[in-house]
Amino acid sequence: MKILIIHGPNLNTLGTREPDIYGSETLDSINSKIEQFCNTLGIEPIFFQSNHEGKLIDTIQSTDDNISGIVINPAAFTHTSVALRDAISSTKTPVVEVHISNIHNREDFRKISFTAGVCIGQISGFGSNSYLLGIQALHFSSLSKS
Amino acid sequence: MKILIIHGPNLNTLGTREPDIYGSETLDSINSKIEQFCNTLGIEPIFFQSNHEGKLIDTIQSTDDNISGIVINPAAFTHTSVALRDAISSTKTPVVEVHISNIHNREDFRKISFTAGVCIGQISGFGSNSYLLGIQALHFSSLSKS
Amino acid sequence: MKILIIHGPNLNTLGTREPDIYGSETLDSINSKIEQFCNTLGIEPIFFQSNHEGKLIDTIQSTDDNISGIVINPAAFTHTSVALRDAISSTKTPVVEVHISNIHNREDFRKISFTAGVCIGQISGFGSNSYLLGIQALHFSSLSKS
Amino acid sequence: MKILIIHGPNLNTLGTREPDIYGSETLDSINSKIEQFCNTLGIEPIFFQSNHEGKLIDTIQSTDDNISGIVINPAAFTHTSVALRDAISSTKTPVVEVHISNIHNREDFRKISFTAGVCIGQISGFGSNSYLLGIQALHFSSLSKS
Amino acid sequence: MKILIIHGPNLNTLGTREPDIYGSETLDSINSKIEQFCNTLGIEPIFFQSNHEGKLIDTIQSTDDNISGIVINPAAFTHTSVALRDAISSTKTPVVEVHISNIHNREDFRKISFTAGVCIGQISGFGSNSYLLGIQALHFSSLSKS
Amino acid sequence: MKILIIHGPNLNTLGTREPDIYGSETLDSINSKIEQFCNTLGIEPIFFQSNHEGKLIDTIQSTDDNISGIVINPAAFTHTSVALRDAISSTKTPVVEVHISNIHNREDFRKISFTAGVCIGQISGFGSNSYLLGIQALHFSSLSKS
Amino acid sequence: MKILIIHGPNLNTLGTREPDIYGSETLDSINSKIEQFCNTLGIEPIFFQSNHEGKLIDTIQSTDDNISGIVINPAAFTHTSVALRDAISSTKTPVVEVHISNIHNREDFRKISFTAGVCIGQISGFGSNSYLLGIQALHFSSLSKS
Amino acid sequence: MKILIIHGPNLNTLGTREPDIYGSETLDSINSKIEQFCNTLGIEPIFFQSNHEGKLIDTIQSTDDNISGIVINPAAFTHTSVALRDAISSTKTPVVEVHISNIHNREDFRKISFTAGVCIGQISGFGSNSYLLGIQALHFSSLSKS
Amino acid sequence: MKILIIHGPNLNTLGTREPDIYGSETLDSINSKIEQFCNTLGIEPIFFQSNHEGKLIDTIQSTDDNISGIVINPAAFTHTSVALRDAISSTKTPVVEVHISNIHNREDFRKISFTAGVCIGQISGFGSNSYLLGIQALHFSSLSKS
Amino acid sequence: MKILIIHGPNLNTLGTREPDIYGSETLDSINSKIEQFCNTLGIEPIFFQSNHEGKLIDTIQSTDDNISGIVINPAAFTHTSVALRDAISSTKTPVVEVHISNIHNREDFRKISFTAGVCIGQISGFGSNSYLLGIQALHFSSLSKS
Amino acid sequence: MKILIIHGPNLNTLGTREPDIYGSETLDSINSKIEQFCNTLGIEPIFFQSNHEGKLIDTIQSTDDNISGIVINPAAFTHTSVALRDAISSTKTPVVEVHISNIHNREDFRKISFTAGVCIGQISGFGSNSYLLGIQALHFSSLSKS
Amino acid sequence: MKILIIHGPNLNTLGTREPDIYGSETLDSINSKIEQFCNTLGIEPIFFQSNHEGKLIDTIQSTDDNISGIVINPAAFTHTSVALRDAISSTKTPVVEVHISNIHNREDFRKISFTAGVCIGQISGFGSNSYLLGIQALHFSSLSKS
Repeated sequence: MKILIIHGPNLNTLGTREPDIYGSETLDSINSKIEQFCNTLGIEPIFFQSNHEGKLIDTIQSTDDNISGIVINPAAFTHTSVALRDAISSTKTPVVEVHISNIHNREDFRKISFTAGVCIGQISGFGSNSYLLGIQALHFSSLSKS
Repeated sequence: MKILIIHGPNLNTLGTREPDIYGSETLDSINSKIEQFCNTLGIEPIFFQSNHEGKLIDTIQSTDDNISGIVINPAAFTHTSVALRDAISSTKTPVVEVHISNIHNREDFRKISFTAGVCIGQISGFGSNSYLLGIQALHFSSLSKS
Repeated sequence: MKILIIHGPNLNTLGTREPDIYGSETLDSINSKIEQFCNTLGIEPIFFQSNHEGKLIDTIQSTDDNISGIVINPAAFTHTSVALRDAISSTKTPVVEVHISNIHNREDFRKISFTAGVCIGQISGFGSNSYLLGIQALHFSSLSKS
Repeated sequence: MKILIIHGPNLNTLGTREPDIYGSETLDSINSKIEQFCNTLGIEPIFFQSNHEGKLIDTIQSTDDNISGIVINPAAFTHTSVALRDAISSTKTPVVEVHISNIHNREDFRKISFTAGVCIGQISGFGSNSYLLGIQALHFSSLSKS
Repeated sequence: MKILIIHGPNLNTLGTREPDIYGSETLDSINSKIEQFCNTLGIEPIFFQSNHEGKLIDTIQSTDDNISGIVINPAAFTHTSVALRDAISSTKTPVVEVHISNIHNREDFRKISFTAGVCIGQISGFGSNSYLLGIQALHFSSLSKS
Repeated sequence: MKILIIHGPNLNTLGTREPDIYGSETLDSINSKIEQFCNTLGIEPIFFQSNHEGKLIDTIQSTDDNISGIVINPAAFTHTSVALRDAISSTKTPVVEVHISNIHNREDFRKISFTAGVCIGQISGFGSNSYLLGIQALHFSSLSKS
Repeated sequence: MKILIIHGPNLNTLGTREPDIYGSETLDSINSKIEQFCNTLGIEPIFFQSNHEGKLIDTIQSTDDNISGIVINPAAFTHTSVALRDAISSTKTPVVEVHISNIHNREDFRKISFTAGVCIGQISGFGSNSYLLGIQALHFSSLSKS
Repeated sequence: MKILIIHGPNLNTLGTREPDIYGSETLDSINSKIEQFCNTLGIEPIFFQSNHEGKLIDTIQSTDDNISGIVINPAAFTHTSVALRDAISSTKTPVVEVHISNIHNREDFRKISFTAGVCIGQISGFGSNSYLLGIQALHFSSLSKS
Repeated sequence: MKILIIHGPNLNTLGTREPDIYGSETLDSINSKIEQFCNTLGIEPIFFQSNHEGKLIDTIQSTDDNISGIVINPAAFTHTSVALRDAISSTKTPVVEVHISNIHNREDFRKISFTAGVCIGQISGFGSNSYLLGIQALHFSSLSKS
Repeated sequence: MKILIIHGPNLNTLGTREPDIYGSETLDSINSKIEQFCNTLGIEPIFFQSNHEGKLIDTIQSTDDNISGIVINPAAFTHTSVALRDAISSTKTPVVEVHISNIHNREDFRKISFTAGVCIGQISGFGSNSYLLGIQALHFSSLSKS
Repeated sequence: MKILIIHGPNLNTLGTREPDIYGSETLDSINSKIEQFCNTLGIEPIFFQSNHEGKLIDTIQSTDDNISGIVINPAAFTHTSVALRDAISSTKTPVVEVHISNIHNREDFRKISFTAGVCIGQISGFGSNSYLLGIQALHFSSLSKS
Repeated sequence: MKILIIHGPNLNTLGTREPDIYGSETLDSINSKIEQFCNTLGIEPIFFQSNHEGKLIDTIQSTDDNISGIVINPAAFTHTSVALRDAISSTKTPVVEVHISNIHNREDFRKISFTAGVCIGQISGFGSNSYLLGIQALHFSSLSKS
């Protein structure tokens, strides 16, 4: 079972980027943590990060039957990208949206979400654990199907 | 480790209530599922359900140091209760908000949340698994503290 | 045929409460009038009043097949209670919403209705006769089914 | 006792017009049903339908003391016609507004009502029975006066 | 010099229509008053009233070089008719908008005006004198041209 | 194959009406152009223009199986007429909405459209060619059916 | 009969100030024109101009029984000054609001009026003639009283 | 002279609840302070606190002629409870609304008040002294009556 | 202990100004009442009234350590003056905002307050007693400091 | 005569992407259909698709005098991209906007269009025929110029 | 070359006024800094500060050909004064708007600007250097003209 | 001292792009002008332009300690890109936002800025001089630090 982990814009600067909001873990250490967690579930994670909306869309479109699910942190694009929304609603792969920070207690413009409504669900506010919970959610879902 | 599971209004009618939105599991079967999941993590769940906003507030206020965390599905009160928000922001016990349905693709008035901003985070859209993920989130958090 | 008549918050003070808006009939005299009207249709009315949102929800949930319909005046909760809306949309009993005053020519916040959209219909502005018309509506409906 | 029944725009196509919203009764069959109901109350109904806002206003203005009340379904004009509102608030004949469908669970623009606030009251959602209930409401009202 | 005086919907019921807002003069007495005033200025007034938006538009379109100006009280159509606005902005005859009541201290929906912006100007609040002032305005304007 | 061409309010004054927005063609010359274009496609156009909302609705309702489609320029009614919307959504004849000017770069109130959502589609901004494109659209559609 | 003519902020620069909007007459020439017009009606005009909101309020408050009416062009304060509104609604002297330009076809913020609702009426769009019409309005009103 | 002091939801946790906003006094110490203050004015205070909207309404309804006034801190219900508003506007006992914190410099949703408009007045921002000022206000008022 | 009492625009006309809203006391009699109340608390009041926003700001800026507090009724400027807000938030003297009428049940534009959020608190609705309560509030506050 | 056909984000997945909204044709088959249609008009189409906003802008900027027109389906970028709007308004090549689905009966956020106002016009709702109509529109326009 | 430097309300208290937002420089030290900077460019600065909107308008109106430009910090009036806007748009002297703080990351009401749109441009956020940059901007502009 | 000059989307077409708004200078000539200005201050400018939001973000992220500041004209992305905002708020390099045109007197959607609030400040409206002023601002700031 393979899961695609997609990190949106500016997440490559985690650790140095506004650590009071996003914590001090780097993206590499988060990816290691994800990998370790996936191992315990027998899942193979594939990682992708980009600051380019177009590349995120290309990547979502490129998934085939080998990918059982996508965990995406759309970051800023959550609030502005109808194109990303359309890419998610067009793919047949199940998608879970995750956020490191709790988007519900930040600026008003972060309360609008174009993507959450076309994902299975949204997980927000648990730091890097939000990714693990997103993977867990896909795993629960695959268990109930098999 | 004890966790308080709070079910908000109308969740006692799960199974018969709008099954196309909320699924066909009853609250009892969800509680059993939660109990089973908690067992595997060495957690003791305590359950509470009420249709009365005041009783939910009383219950949140009554937690003491024996309760390590609260998983609450505020249901309709998510969108209307400032009093519940104040109760959550007043308690020292960490609180996770969960929703069975994906509130981001329902009526507009369900997009407003008074409670999410004062919880650690919000998990929405994974059916009864949302509760398990909420418990998992508290468990992750307790691990990182110890 | 039994019909449940539910009076929402502050309707127990009818007669003394703002008589220029709500008239000078007390709740008791309205209930007598309802009873008399029901007799002519062979209906047995059951009355319930509460200022507690939770008790109104409990009462709606408690109806079983013996109750053929509910006539509810949600009063102030019309405009604020998503929980009451969810209770109404969850019950299988047909519900008619009634208002004593014409809510369309009062404060702006009384123009928002959370409950009307999940009832069969709404009757507003006919004083205590609104209840009789609500009962009539359920009676018409039961005639067309039989 | 004579009552004027006014049907607004597009109601002449009832039966074929969006039957999932408005039902399959034609305007003729509704008028027959109204006539029958009126007979039982000793009321003589007079019918008028037009797609022309101006003709509806002319008709409302033309009522004299022979007409004891008006039951109007303003249809689409409910939401757009200040002129109709002014005609209703100018006439001394009591007016009841009725709607076949439940306007509270349709498009947002149907939630705005220019006319309801200047009628005695509004009845919405009971199919063709809404007309009968409107007539009943005027009848109740005439009884209490005599 | 001929001036067309156009009265919009429901103005034919002046005198009986909400006299606390519109005064007790009838449309006939206002027209007489206008005629008398015009005489003193050497103007011939032509009167038109309709409750039909389409007829008002037809009338505005039908003016030719014999008509030096239009004084229109669009009444309720002020607030709802883009078609009337377009008719006014299409005609080459100068148009003055008048209102009997002060529309600035009435319902909020009467604060929106589709027509005022395409007239020369607007006169509001002086009772039937608003018409005289509108005629005076056109007269001033014709003096300054000659 | 017959197609009904409906011109809304004020379009009868084309050519003289605000030529910087609507061009200098008269309605007659546009109708000739339409007729010529229809000839090349083997279509018989039938023309109707009115400034009366009610007459436009009557006309839409009067189409029968002899009419294969309607091309309507609702002009100002696009933005204000729910009644026209209801007439279009009630007819079984396919309807295409066209506009001479590009309504997307005009006043804000012209951005609201009550009618476009219940037509097959909307064509806006191509001068009198918008009509030809609307006819072409119906023709394409009839080809794909046959 | 004395009438107070109050000119609000920036009207002292008329003639040079944005002449495409306000015309090329100076305030002095407008005052002369007003004086001439008043003479024909047997009225004595008193002039006051200030760019200071406080001085305008002081002036309105200082009127006594010798002043039969006020014609005020509040200019920019129309749209921002609740204090001016309160001064007008506090005085017993009748007040007419006038505007040189047609405020209904300018920036959106000029559509909001704090003062018009507490004046007798508003006259807008007739250039310097707006003042004459305002005086005429007060004169009509005084005639009807005497 | 008896005065009813009503504390709304979550005020029972004062002292521990968000002390940077609400201060470190407990509800008991505030009640003692109120009692002491009342003694100096010859007033007997009666205290009531509840997290249940329904109980607050029941309590307001239960006041009789023995109670000369109510000082209520509706807390979160200020911003959400139309039912509480209706209870206040229905009672004949004069009601003063108080708030410990200054609600005007907090979250936007705390700027909306359903209750203030039907109280005599509102006092906000003076810590526990807001209660004393509310009592003083009722005392002033009773003095001026006697 | 000296306290500065600042009266905003139009308060100098109290007694004659809209007595149904503001009562029949004149500003002089209110000042006498304030003086008398201050005497009982050993406070020396200093009075200032102006209709000029600039003078109110100058006065607030001119307070030095001799002034222990300011009680201001900003009247209309409450709702429009950011400059007054900035003056209040710049001064080190504690400021209390008072209103004679209950601003929460008046026009909507009086619900917006620029000044309340930067004062200690706001007192509204108690007639001239609002001033006394404001002084009392400052006195309570000075007691708790000493 | 060459025309550039630009397909925006996610249109490369047509056929599999939400076929109930966009139909079952693939982009390749649509391009073939376009090619065929262009042949009949003597036009050479050039195709470009990208999920990258930047590449669409680069492409619009790169057109030279060899390209007589652009038919663009901006898809999701219609509703979010001011940059695309600026690119269109900067180019001298005439641009027509087309949409496969009728954007007027979809989600509210699809009703906002940044691009339509700077195109010649917009065609929406005719399936893949929208492209053909866009090409036809450019062809009509080129005919009238030559 | 002379430049007028206008400081709006409350800027005379700089240094003591909210130093975390506006810094600790006094207005005198800023004026010295401006004078020094002007010397290097051969410009003579003239300074004016007032808390009175009317005096700022008087000052702007009083500039003649000797003044080559105005640098104004309208402070709070930026967000509320249409009168100041009109004064700026009426003067022929070029005006540059400056702000000490970055108004884009403060309260929402500071995001609305009445004055910026009628100035040449706006400079915001550079502390007292904003004035120097405003002078530089006028200097650049005068260079390009000579 | 090196400064990075970033030009956002469509700025590469300056000179030909809407010259009435943006002037007739090309980007090359602006860059030359910037270079010349930098030379006089001993600054080395580095230039970057892209129509791709992702590339602008990549470039901002890539700055290291060699870059003393960034002057960015985000063009259209100012109004739509939360991702660019996040990139700016994540970098430690000081950023100044500049605009060629005065964004405060253009379309309403250009009044919303996502980026200005996280920059040091914003300079808008001075043509290509806005860049020079932005560089000057960074230079002033570096002087005060050394």
